[in-house]
Amino acid sequence: MAFVCLADFQAFAKDNLPKSTWEFIEGGADECITRDENISAYKKIRLRPRFLRDMSVVDTKTTIQGSEISFPVCIAPTGFHCLCWPDGEQSTAKAEAMNICYVTSTYSSCFYDDIVAGAPNGLRWIQLYVQRDRKITKKLIQKVESLGYKALVLTVDTPALGNRLQDNRNRFSFPALLSTKNIHVPIEENSESLLSVSSIDSSTSWKDIAWLKSITQMPIILKGILTREDAELAISHNVQGILVSNHGGRQLDTVPATIDALTEVVNAVQGRIEVYLDGGIRTGTDVLKALALGARCVFLGRPILWGLTYKGEEGVRQVLNLLKKEFYRSMVFTGCRSISEISQDLVQFSKL
Amino acid sequence: MAFVCLADFQAFAKDNLPKSTWEFIEGGADECITRDENISAYKKIRLRPRFLRDMSVVDTKTTIQGSEISFPVCIAPTGFHCLCWPDGEQSTAKAEAMNICYVTSTYSSCFYDDIVAGAPNGLRWIQLYVQRDRKITKKLIQKVESLGYKALVLTVDTPALGNRLQDNRNRFSFPALLSTKNIHVPIEENSESLLSVSSIDSSTSWKDIAWLKSITQMPIILKGILTREDAELAISHNVQGILVSNHGGRQLDTVPATIDALTEVVNAVQGRIEVYLDGGIRTGTDVLKALALGARCVFLGRPILWGLTYKGEEGVRQVLNLLKKEFYRSMVFTGCRSISEISQDLVQFSKL
Amino acid sequence: MAFVCLADFQAFAKDNLPKSTWEFIEGGADECITRDENISAYKKIRLRPRFLRDMSVVDTKTTIQGSEISFPVCIAPTGFHCLCWPDGEQSTAKAEAMNICYVTSTYSSCFYDDIVAGAPNGLRWIQLYVQRDRKITKKLIQKVESLGYKALVLTVDTPALGNRLQDNRNRFSFPALLSTKNIHVPIEENSESLLSVSSIDSSTSWKDIAWLKSITQMPIILKGILTREDAELAISHNVQGILVSNHGGRQLDTVPATIDALTEVVNAVQGRIEVYLDGGIRTGTDVLKALALGARCVFLGRPILWGLTYKGEEGVRQVLNLLKKEFYRSMVFTGCRSISEISQDLVQFSKL
Amino acid sequence: MAFVCLADFQAFAKDNLPKSTWEFIEGGADECITRDENISAYKKIRLRPRFLRDMSVVDTKTTIQGSEISFPVCIAPTGFHCLCWPDGEQSTAKAEAMNICYVTSTYSSCFYDDIVAGAPNGLRWIQLYVQRDRKITKKLIQKVESLGYKALVLTVDTPALGNRLQDNRNRFSFPALLSTKNIHVPIEENSESLLSVSSIDSSTSWKDIAWLKSITQMPIILKGILTREDAELAISHNVQGILVSNHGGRQLDTVPATIDALTEVVNAVQGRIEVYLDGGIRTGTDVLKALALGARCVFLGRPILWGLTYKGEEGVRQVLNLLKKEFYRSMVFTGCRSISEISQDLVQFSKL
Repeated sequence: MAFVCLADFQAFAKDNLPKSTWEFIEGGADECITRDENISAYKKIRLRPRFLRDMSVVDTKTTIQGSEISFPVCIAPTGFHCLCWPDGEQSTAKAEAMNICYVTSTYSSCFYDDIVAGAPNGLRWIQLYVQRDRKITKKLIQKVESLGYKALVLTVDTPALGNRLQDNRNRFSFPALLSTKNIHVPIEENSESLLSVSSIDSSTSWKDIAWLKSITQMPIILKGILTREDAELAISHNVQGILVSNHGGRQLDTVPATIDALTEVVNAVQGRIEVYLDGGIRTGTDVLKALALGARCVFLGRPILWGLTYKGEEGVRQVLNLLKKEFYRSMVFTGCRSISEISQDLVQFSKL
Repeated sequence: MAFVCLADFQAFAKDNLPKSTWEFIEGGADECITRDENISAYKKIRLRPRFLRDMSVVDTKTTIQGSEISFPVCIAPTGFHCLCWPDGEQSTAKAEAMNICYVTSTYSSCFYDDIVAGAPNGLRWIQLYVQRDRKITKKLIQKVESLGYKALVLTVDTPALGNRLQDNRNRFSFPALLSTKNIHVPIEENSESLLSVSSIDSSTSWKDIAWLKSITQMPIILKGILTREDAELAISHNVQGILVSNHGGRQLDTVPATIDALTEVVNAVQGRIEVYLDGGIRTGTDVLKALALGARCVFLGRPILWGLTYKGEEGVRQVLNLLKKEFYRSMVFTGCRSISEISQDLVQFSKL
Repeated sequence: MAFVCLADFQAFAKDNLPKSTWEFIEGGADECITRDENISAYKKIRLRPRFLRDMSVVDTKTTIQGSEISFPVCIAPTGFHCLCWPDGEQSTAKAEAMNICYVTSTYSSCFYDDIVAGAPNGLRWIQLYVQRDRKITKKLIQKVESLGYKALVLTVDTPALGNRLQDNRNRFSFPALLSTKNIHVPIEENSESLLSVSSIDSSTSWKDIAWLKSITQMPIILKGILTREDAELAISHNVQGILVSNHGGRQLDTVPATIDALTEVVNAVQGRIEVYLDGGIRTGTDVLKALALGARCVFLGRPILWGLTYKGEEGVRQVLNLLKKEFYRSMVFTGCRSISEISQDLVQFSKL
Repeated sequence: MAFVCLADFQAFAKDNLPKSTWEFIEGGADECITRDENISAYKKIRLRPRFLRDMSVVDTKTTIQGSEISFPVCIAPTGFHCLCWPDGEQSTAKAEAMNICYVTSTYSSCFYDDIVAGAPNGLRWIQLYVQRDRKITKKLIQKVESLGYKALVLTVDTPALGNRLQDNRNRFSFPALLSTKNIHVPIEENSESLLSVSSIDSSTSWKDIAWLKSITQMPIILKGILTREDAELAISHNVQGILVSNHGGRQLDTVPATIDALTEVVNAVQGRIEVYLDGGIRTGTDVLKALALGARCVFLGRPILWGLTYKGEEGVRQVLNLLKKEFYRSMVFTGCRSISEISQDLVQFSKL
């Protein structure tokens, strides 16, 4: 069977992963309203295509934090890739060699050294959960910086873990070998929640941005900002980017779809720093819409895990290449010859 | 099987109660449009979470009419608890000992003395249907006041009983032993409507507020107000609170969901008296939304009966504790460290 | 089985009529969008109930064209009642003796003399399709006027017959004995459309109002007006009433639901003549909403035929009594002690 | 079985064509959101009918580019009619003899000479994809002009082929005998996309309009314009018409339904050139709505292929006659005696 859209990879993963793993990956918080709306919100946005432009040359390249990427879709941080493929994040990192960026999770199931070794020249950012033990946090940051990581993506929406009903029903836990190798968080088997939340520091606050800046040269991106108020605080604390995210709908249910929150954040930021988005990207037109509404680049979460489940490095590449082809086509069909031609005029919200 | 959300208790109750009892509890008036919208209206409200605040200490305590409660969820008045658990309201009252308020129904299936005996220190309010025989009404009020009840919740939306199709189909009636012990209303077996409506005085009107004030020191809360006009009348008649309610959608079908009516009432009241809400609360984010829109506290109806059906006092506690955990989490995820930090900025209405 | 709502009569009729008769009665034009929206439009209107009024006496009486009726629900004109019950319109007329108005169709399957004989004191109006042969039209009008009919309801929305797919599929036709006894229209068996449209005069126009006025003393009501423009023309042509109708969704698909068109017509009319409505009334709250939005009275079409199918005169009475009880209750629950207290403040349109 | 609406022809075609051919015809791009919305958008538009006008004479005739047509529905360009009926476009052309216009596709499966021979007096326009080899393009245009074609319909929305998932799954390809006879594009069997896109010139741009004008006297119609900006460019490049189209939802998914885009284009054009529409027309009221919103004429795509599949020339006639009857009826029911009486007052957008 040919895989002709991202949903085909999803169907494969559903059929081939253990049920509890599948539900851990697909799950959202509570009633999954936000998880589902992340996707459905794109269906209500209409494209306004422009025609009779010479589309013989179309360039999908752009930059994020000054680094060039081949098209504006990168790999969002998700944990525990070994659940999907034996050597987990190492395979993911190799696929990234197609010249995009891979944001590695704090909760990776491979050592950072091994991840880097697989694709030494790839562009990598590190995702950070601030740990209660600030020494562990500092050590982690300095380790990855020395490995060539280029930016620090601080997740702000996880002062506690989201309420994922299926994981609770499944009493989902990790085999010991999947423990988060890089920060040595003890995993309690059969504990009710996925992972002991005690290691994440719920006291993390705006004042910690200054501390992070004091221990790293990497630019800081805040992942999870959804409001103009927090966007303004982000700028006043001198971070270098905002990743509009709701954690794939896995943290607090009924927050807005990220594509709906994007405009509010973009309007507050006024171009002073780069704004990214993750959540719900499933087609090339989704990418185009996010860019038209002001995102510099989008990040893919679950679809990367579906590709990884399918064929490891090769599966991740297939997912990315399919989306690249779709995005390229959506530029051709709307008259955009370069990323800079993707403007807000391209979209309108459906009356429906 | 683990019970991970309130709907799990509902499923248990559906499976374990006699069909006609289940339909009596779940039923709404006519086509059940309001009953269902009470719940679905919350799904259209979006939360605007704030991050990077120190969430290591979160306090859910608040007060109602000056009494402290451990979190802003209390027990709404519902009748005939013995339908769900042998000693009915006595078990419900014991669960309330977790420091919330229990509004006891006029139509309780236990004697008030017994209800109080089970949890002598609990906070209790009394719900009142004015009886045609005003002497009975007066006796009831003075009885419960002497038992330590702290407020009088006058139901205003029941000049007649709602048209509940399933009860009519089932010709639902009560076994004699479930008669409303405290007011000695004769129950006619096999009568077409649930309960002889003749005992409730359909002539009750605004002028009776003065009479009630003349016979009790308890503050008076009007339950069932849905419009700005009635809210203004309530204030001009010197009541101490309004409980925005549509009787769980059991009286007049196609009135607004309570969360939709709340803003109109809150805007009319302008903080002069406390405003509460019941109807459709099923998750912690529902509670947060109601508070953000101006409710001081919300009341739980059917979910209490589901918990009671499951395990009596213990089941009611489990329901309340689960909701408390969810509400706590929703505060953590939106950056609210105390009830006073829950403001209207937290919500927006979905475009959908 | 108890019949607790109008839908129960509908279910009975569906089960007991021949399929092609059922589809003739229930059918709408083309895709039945308007037929269905006539009903669903009421579900989006919310009631704003008022409380603490003395509801011990509630009066549902009102008048139409100066005649008193026991509650504001009358019988809309529908043809061929003998399809549902052996003596057809004669039984319908007897049920009307409960002091409402019965609008008899041009296409009745009983002689007008027999219809009148069954309930000599009932209030009756005549519905008119202008026939090509104006002498037939004149004779019909003068006949019914002499029989005591009190108003002429001119249907304006039928210059041709609607496109009812199921009737076309069924090649629906009438047995000879069901021919329209009063105007002797030849029925062609197995003709593709229900009834030879050639007898209705598609050239009927505003100038014919003057002609009608010249041959009858009865007030003239225009049935089928849906726009402000036509409402204004109606008034300038000195008719005495407008019945906002879309022929039960049987003529032109995708015209507005009547409850949605009502406000436009009421606003244009400004109280100068009476405005009525038919289409989609299924519950007591539907009646209340139509009156709150300006209708003086509503007319019931299909539900009368369901009742007739169930038990003839007795079935029609049951339908009317059930709706009367529901309407009474909706007045009690919204604080309306008389028809004159039903005002526009009672309704708001749902956000959904 | 009687065919009483266009959907009946669709059902026949689905049952009688090979699955991959059916999916090629019905398919839309990606998730088929636009394809489906083309149809559903009409259901949300409400008609405002006017009554009591003399409807004994109704005239459906109109003109396009100065040529008279019997009613404002013509045949849109679709390719490869031999997939549906042995002699393909020749049968389609014969059906057109009922005095409408047939827009012949660049990718016809019959020679243009044969198409013309079948109905020498018919009104025909030619649809053009500009080929990379401009000599082929020029030859094609001059050939059809010499055959009596009356206008050139330049498709602007196909700088590449749309992403049709089912065709990709089916690896849909054409038997050699169905090759596009008029332009000799080599068809690669089993290639992944339908048709080698290499023959269409993706560099075609506004400057080519002048070139086209230099090689033909035919008026030029731009097919695929969806925005005010492109409508203004069209006028400034002196084309004679715009066909608002989204290629049946087959090119870029999530562009607006054509009936939704029509108003924007009509407002920009301000009557300076004729505006047409294709996409989603399935009933007579759809045609009426498009005309009320400013279209001069609409074009039918898939329904023509359904009719062709059913019975060749006779099937196409049946489809067109059914729609003509429905359109005639919709004029009668709204009080429009001629095309010029169809005005914007006739429509309003549903609140739903």
